[in-house]
Amino acid sequence: MAKPMPDVLQAHRSFYEAIESADVDLMASLWAQSEHATCIHPGAAPVRGTASVLRTWTMLMANVGYIQFFLTDIDVVTFPPGDDEPHTAVITCTENILSGEGLAANESFTGGKAIATSMLVRDGQSWKIWMRHASPVVDLTQTEGEET
Amino acid sequence: MAKPMPDVLQAHRSFYEAIESADVDLMASLWAQSEHATCIHPGAAPVRGTASVLRTWTMLMANVGYIQFFLTDIDVVTFPPGDDEPHTAVITCTENILSGEGLAANESFTGGKAIATSMLVRDGQSWKIWMRHASPVVDLTQTEGEET
Repeated sequence: MAKPMPDVLQAHRSFYEAIESADVDLMASLWAQSEHATCIHPGAAPVRGTASVLRTWTMLMANVGYIQFFLTDIDVVTFPPGDDEPHTAVITCTENILSGEGLAANESFTGGKAIATSMLVRDGQSWKIWMRHASPVVDLTQTEGEET
Repeated sequence: MAKPMPDVLQAHRSFYEAIESADVDLMASLWAQSEHATCIHPGAAPVRGTASVLRTWTMLMANVGYIQFFLTDIDVVTFPPGDDEPHTAVITCTENILSGEGLAANESFTGGKAIATSMLVRDGQSWKIWMRHASPVVDLTQTEGEET
């Protein structure tokens, strides 16, 4: 009997739990080991390589007090689409961030709202984060109605 | 004899050529057809679905005059790593944007510099863009040296 597929959304959720609980070990366990693993913090240039990525998270978690993420507009797609044994997954979501003091000094969570794209790769029975790209949401009036 | 693999970096470059030449048809030919295809313009919320994504590009290209992209810090990884027939690819790069007048009014290219992550999926002999996430680069002094 085939083993059940690991839940990619659970891995995605664990990532936020790691930040919320400042759990460096949990965070480290979630990332793929590669010099190409990439994390793009909001407004920042890419950080590449698992060790460097984890270093930024350790620094961020050390400098942030209370923080909680409410994820909305979650969209998950696994590849190949419809395959019972997907190998990669892309998850996009809106991060609505609730935090205590100390956060204002941290440029990486400005605005309290960010858009995040995560790409995960399956490593046997677990999903590992290969890439994360987060960006601030600029509060602009939608221009959708101004078509020419 | 196996057919040569299509060049994912060429598909990536074609995307920028489509913007630079305001070639709506070329742009349309480069995207995967899916309601989950996603484009996150700098500072904006995700746009989902190929038709909606292409609509935003058509609007952007209609409103931007001269524009040219100089890509630096390009990193490409194909999955599975080392496989001769990869099915997905992730490319990150820095977009250094040179443009004429008219661009200042367009919030999607603020700052002249953006970080872009593109995920492409292989469809037989061509690569299609599945997801693009671009974000502005905030000009902050690196805090790397301020470790505790």
